[in-house]
Formats: sequence, structure tokens, C-alpha cells
Amino acid sequence: MFPYQDLHQFTQSIFLSIGCPAEDAKLATDVLLSADLRGVDSHGVARLSGYVRLWEAGRINTAPQVQVVHETPSTAVVDGDRGLGLVVAPKAMAIAIQKAEQVGTGWVSVRNSNHYGIAGYHAMQALSHDMIGLAMTNASPLVAPTHAIERLLGTNPIAVAIPAQEQPPFVADFATTTAANGKLEILQRKNLEAPVGWIQDAAGQDSINPHELKAGGTLLPLGGETGSHKGYCLGSIVDIFSAVLSGANYGPWVPPFVSFLPLPANPVGEGIGHFFGSMRVDAFRPAAEFKAHMDNWITTFRNAKTKAGQEAVLIPGDPERLMEKERLTAGIPLLEPVLKDLESLGQKFGITLV
Amino acid sequence: MFPYQDLHQFTQSIFLSIGCPAEDAKLATDVLLSADLRGVDSHGVARLSGYVRLWEAGRINTAPQVQVVHETPSTAVVDGDRGLGLVVAPKAMAIAIQKAEQVGTGWVSVRNSNHYGIAGYHAMQALSHDMIGLAMTNASPLVAPTHAIERLLGTNPIAVAIPAQEQPPFVADFATTTAANGKLEILQRKNLEAPVGWIQDAAGQDSINPHELKAGGTLLPLGGETGSHKGYCLGSIVDIFSAVLSGANYGPWVPPFVSFLPLPANPVGEGIGHFFGSMRVDAFRPAAEFKAHMDNWITTFRNAKTKAGQEAVLIPGDPERLMEKERLTAGIPLLEPVLKDLESLGQKFGITLV
Repeated sequence: MFPYQDLHQFTQSIFLSIGCPAEDAKLATDVLLSADLRGVDSHGVARLSGYVRLWEAGRINTAPQVQVVHETPSTAVVDGDRGLGLVVAPKAMAIAIQKAEQVGTGWVSVRNSNHYGIAGYHAMQALSHDMIGLAMTNASPLVAPTHAIERLLGTNPIAVAIPAQEQPPFVADFATTTAANGKLEILQRKNLEAPVGWIQDAAGQDSINPHELKAGGTLLPLGGETGSHKGYCLGSIVDIFSAVLSGANYGPWVPPFVSFLPLPANPVGEGIGHFFGSMRVDAFRPAAEFKAHMDNWITTFRNAKTKAGQEAVLIPGDPERLMEKERLTAGIPLLEPVLKDLESLGQKFGITLV
Repeated sequence: MFPYQDLHQFTQSIFLSIGCPAEDAKLATDVLLSADLRGVDSHGVARLSGYVRLWEAGRINTAPQVQVVHETPSTAVVDGDRGLGLVVAPKAMAIAIQKAEQVGTGWVSVRNSNHYGIAGYHAMQALSHDMIGLAMTNASPLVAPTHAIERLLGTNPIAVAIPAQEQPPFVADFATTTAANGKLEILQRKNLEAPVGWIQDAAGQDSINPHELKAGGTLLPLGGETGSHKGYCLGSIVDIFSAVLSGANYGPWVPPFVSFLPLPANPVGEGIGHFFGSMRVDAFRPAAEFKAHMDNWITTFRNAKTKAGQEAVLIPGDPERLMEKERLTAGIPLLEPVLKDLESLGQKFGITLV
């Protein structure tokens, strides 16, 4: 177990070493480690060396000038200047929040960015302002549309955070595929079979081989055999809001997260795209009234009758919140390969982990 | 086959007979019949007698004063005055569009309404304004959250319409359950088994009996066994945006569409709720640029390689658009029970169908 503070200091030093200004290094670290705290281990420090390799490959600008290139009272397009998504995203979300303060809601589409960590972190920035937050991003193509065998969409997650009063907030954060790629990575490491409906092989047949993507297979949209057209719709909406609205790359042109893959030829935009929204709840009804009803909504669902032998009904955000509470005190576990990866990063930059 | 114009005239006369002002009767008819044209037969004239029974039961006000009760530059809450959702929804969507004209986007949450027909119709109102349209609604509780056996959510659909230039628009319109209730009704009529993952019995076991809901069963959220928590998230977001933001009923308190079921005791709001959004594409980038990229997005996906023996990759909205084209010329088929239902409605009000 590694204390949060130790991992934070280490990660922040790495971001400083690759040229992030002090404020950005702290921000990127807060965002990245929120994944480890919330139990989304695939999106936390396990990816730190990946960001460094993108920087080494000249694909990330660690001192970006993030700026608004177009705006109306309730919208903006932000150019991330090839910055870390971990830095670009919170700045874009802050603009959405500012616009919501002024006209009720704010909607920001971002181009020329990179991977932004967990979507939930960004949506949750709205909560302390008594706003509903929304965050989406497109991602490296791994997913075939319904009927297809070509990779045209990423796992394209959607996060929505909604404040309550006495109850903790509602925080949904999910990939628009049957399973997030991180879950598949866990099966790969453990060499376990994947459930039917997660992936198909290169010819479009069901596969339970977690390594199928390496052989040309694809992830399947949420909904599986009985409804993958709905996951395909959702992933497409995320792609269009994030990239066609902003001028980022979409579909098969989204740049890969891994630096060893070449950038797609003939790009249709700049970098990857994100989309953020913020809605003041009192732009609809008094905040106290809204939050009291959210408390009632949450307790009604939490107290729903369950099937025999089933655990309680969970409210979106419950597992991650409990995990964060535990890991802030007990520390964060790191798998052996992740630890080795961090140690060799440390050696490269002369930084020790503990 | 029944010519669209004949069905339109008949339906409009029925709405006039139950007290709708002329303009509202036309609007309600346009909305209702758009479902029949687009092939969503469960949501069209098949429901006309249901609306009439709600009016007979005093649950629908056919001459409502639809009004904005709260607003900011980019938001509004609309009170539907117990009107037909078929009339309230287009009026609320028009307000969203008007706000988008002024400040880039408009977001309207609606309370005190009733069933609004197909979500896609409302989202599509944005298209001719070069806007992206969004429509959601909550609905009678039929769906159990993940792990539960209680009915707490409706099929809560989401529709998103996105304009293109040469290509037809992208129009996604889907229930947040594995299958819409309309699809289950078709199996019920034909006495066919339902696929695993659509429904569970009263104890929470998988069921393939399409009549299971009558025995206390529930519909399952989109995602089925491998991801129903994501469908549960989506259905919940629709419920909260539609009803907790506006002051409508949510969760188990949503009034039933069928008039023979009692209204839930201790309502937490007024009527059912909807949520509409409209975003000017030129609030993000020049409309011509956006639409040219949408054309490229659409053709890229449509031309994706398919699995052996599979039909082409469809763009959301393709099947409905083709159906509408066909039915506008060939006419609309009516199942025997639907035709009988319309004939007895006609007798009641002294109106003949053909």
C-alpha cells in the first residue's frame, strides 16, 4: 500500500520533470490520482509512463496555452494546444462553470487535447457550485459499430454528476462499450476469459479471448447482442459532441494513447476532443428544493427491494466514494508491473517513490 | 394500408372532439402520426384511445395554458398544465430553440405533462435551425434498477438529432432499457418468446415470457447481465433531468399512461416530466464547416467493413427515414386490433375513418 501523499509527490515531480509549470503539475496529479483513489486503477498512475512516452514522442506539449477560440454566452470551443488532457480538461470545465454562473448553463467542446483521466473527476467539479456536471471524451478507436468489424469509435465515456443535500452526490461515469478497456486489461493480466458480449474477433464472431484486440478484434458497444445499436448511438454522440463540434479528430482518426502506434494519416482535426457541460440547478428551481428531492430520489432507489441473495441497490458513485474513503487512509495498492514501471520512471528522472 | 392524410384527418377530428383548440389538435396529430410514419407503431395511432381514456378520467387538460414558470437566459422550466405531452413538448422545445438563438444553447425541463409520443420528433425540431436537438422523458415505472425487483424507472428514452449537409441527419432515439416496451408488446401480440436480458420475473430471475410484466416482472436496463448498471445510470439521468429539475413526479411516482391504473399515492411533483435541449452548431464552429464534417463522419461509418453476411452499417435514423418515405406514399398499415380500436373511437365521436 502506498500513501496517497507519497504517490502524489512522486507523480507531481514527474510532471514537473517533463516541463509542466508547477500549477499544471499539481492539477494533472490531482486528476490522475483521483482515478487511483476511486478504484479506477486503469486510469491512474498505471498510465503515468504512457503520458511520459507521448511527451517523449513530441505528441504532448507540457506548457500549453489553453485558450477559448470561439464563444457565445453559453458555449465555448477551447483549443488545448496539444496539452495533457489532465490539465486542459479542468480548465475547460472551469469555463463551462463560469458560463453557467452567468447564463444558467455552460457547454464547452475541446479540440487539440490528449487523454484526460477519468471523466467523473471533471463532471464532479460542478458539484461544489450547486451545478450538474457533464463530461465526455472520445478516445482511440477500439470499437466496431453494430454490424461492423472496423474500429471506428473509442470507449467514449460519459460522466454526469448531480448534487444532493444530506446524501452524497449521484456520480455516473461509464464507458459506452459493454466493458471499459481497463476491465479487459485486468482479464489480460490474469489470463481470464471475457464474458460473451464484450469483444468480437477480426471476422466479427463472439470471442472470450481477452487478447483478441491484438489479433484485430474489436470491443462491442454497450447493449451486446440485444441492443448494441444503442451503445453505438451513445458512443457516436460522444464522438460528435467532443470532436465534430470542436474541430478535433473523430472516428478512426482519433490519435492513439500509446506512443508506439503511428498517428492516423490525413487527420480531420486536431488532437482528441472532449465535451463538458454545467447546469446551475437554481436555473431550474431553488437549489434547496432540488437537493431535497435528490435526497428523496437517492434514498428511494437505495431502499428498493433486491432479488434474493443480492447486495443492496447502489446509487451511481457509491462504490467509488467508499473506495476513496478507504484508500485515503489505508493507501493505494499497486500491482507489481505498475510499481516496476513507476520505479523505472523514477530512475529516468532521478526521483524516488518512497 | 391507410393513407397518411386520412389517418391525419381522423386523428385531428378526435383531438378536436375531446376539446383541443384547432392549432393544438393539428400539432398533437403531427406528433402522434410521426411515430406511425417512422415505423414506431407502438407510439402512434395505436395509443390514440389511450389518450382519450386519460381525458375521460380527467387526467388530461385538452386546453392547457402552457407556461414558463422560471427561467434564465439559457434555461426554462415549463408547466404543462396537465396538457397532452404531444402539445406541451413541441411548445417547450420551441422555447429551447429560441433560447439557443439568443445565447447559443437552450435547456428546458417540463413538469405537469403527459406522454409525448416519440422522443425523436421533438429532438428533430432543432434540425431546420442548424441546431442539435435533444429530448428525454420519464415514463410509467416498469424497470428495476440493477440488483432490484421493484419498478422504479420508466423506459426513459433519449433522442439526439444532429444536422448534416448532403447526408440526412443523424437521429438517435432509443429507450434506456434493453428493449422498448413497444417491442415487448409486439411479442405479446404474437405470443413469441422474448430474448434473455429483456425482462425478469417478480423474483428477479431471467424470463423469456413476454407477459411477465403482468405477473409482477420488470423490464431490464440497457446492458443486460454484463452492463445493466449503465442502462440504470442512463435511465436515472433521464428521470432526474426530466422531473427532479422541473418539479414533476419521478421514480415510482410517475403517473401511469393507462387510465385503469390508479395514480400513485403521495405524489412528489406534478404529472410526468420531459427535458429538452437545443445547441446552435455555430455556437461552436461555422455551421457549414460542422455540417461538412458530419457528412464525412456519416459516410465513414456507413462505409465501414461489415461482418460476413451482415447488412450495411446503419446511421442512427436511417431505418426510420426510409420507412417514412415509404409510408408517405404507400400508406400506413394498421393491425386488426388497432383498426377496431380506432373504429370504436370513431363511433363514440361520430367520426368515420375512411
